[in-house]
Amino acid sequence: MDLADEQWNVGLLLFVPYRAMEVRVLDALAVAGFDDLTMAQARLMQRLGPQGSRLTELSDQARVTKQTAGFLVDQLERHGYVRREPDPTDGRARIVRLAERGQAAAEAAGAEVARVEAEWTAHIGAREMQRLRDALGRLREITDFDA
Amino acid sequence: MDLADEQWNVGLLLFVPYRAMEVRVLDALAVAGFDDLTMAQARLMQRLGPQGSRLTELSDQARVTKQTAGFLVDQLERHGYVRREPDPTDGRARIVRLAERGQAAAEAAGAEVARVEAEWTAHIGAREMQRLRDALGRLREITDFDA
Repeated sequence: MDLADEQWNVGLLLFVPYRAMEVRVLDALAVAGFDDLTMAQARLMQRLGPQGSRLTELSDQARVTKQTAGFLVDQLERHGYVRREPDPTDGRARIVRLAERGQAAAEAAGAEVARVEAEWTAHIGAREMQRLRDALGRLREITDFDA
Repeated sequence: MDLADEQWNVGLLLFVPYRAMEVRVLDALAVAGFDDLTMAQARLMQRLGPQGSRLTELSDQARVTKQTAGFLVDQLERHGYVRREPDPTDGRARIVRLAERGQAAAEAAGAEVARVEAEWTAHIGAREMQRLRDALGRLREITDFDA
């Protein structure tokens, strides 16, 4: 790429570090022994709330069809990352929760995210990093369809 | 989502506006009559340089395998968005360039990007928007593998 930053649209500017983070986390997971995870599975798993999530919520948040979400959850369940349980707030519904292996993977992912954030902070400075978080948080107000 | 911004990792904070931009552009393309484009095709096409790109460059930049890039270029060529031509700098190599329909789609996409950037600027202010671009440009220095 030889375009100056100014010529890049903000979407592409957002994509580059986002994608770098994603690749770093998936690589770290593989090194930690979670080498059977695909990017799509990891993305979906990242969206699981601490109390578990319904499939519809998951598919909305990861922006995949309900069918794709169901397929990914099947794979994750088979590899021991998640399990389906009855929803305690609605006995007829089922929720998807992290299983032990999923919890361990989430911890490994969180540790790598912290390492990457530390590297970024070292490069642009703590104040700029906080400003970046603030600006992205404000953009989220008008771009997060599930908010 | 009921997590406060602070609990969100920066990767997820980057993803939300990036994805919103992507969805807006694909929707605008469909409205403008380019309704046969998939997200994956549009992503790849966005990476085409003005002088055309080799398949290897494209697959690196879009971060897909060379096989996937070739498959997407086949589809794009069939729908008249791109064409393969001999590389003027190396007669044995071939480059992928925007065809007329691709050029028209790129213009429609650019117009929607400008609209979205204007909305974001209206929400967070021109100064914050410039700061955001600057911070992302600096992160690109350490996260853009093709730079």
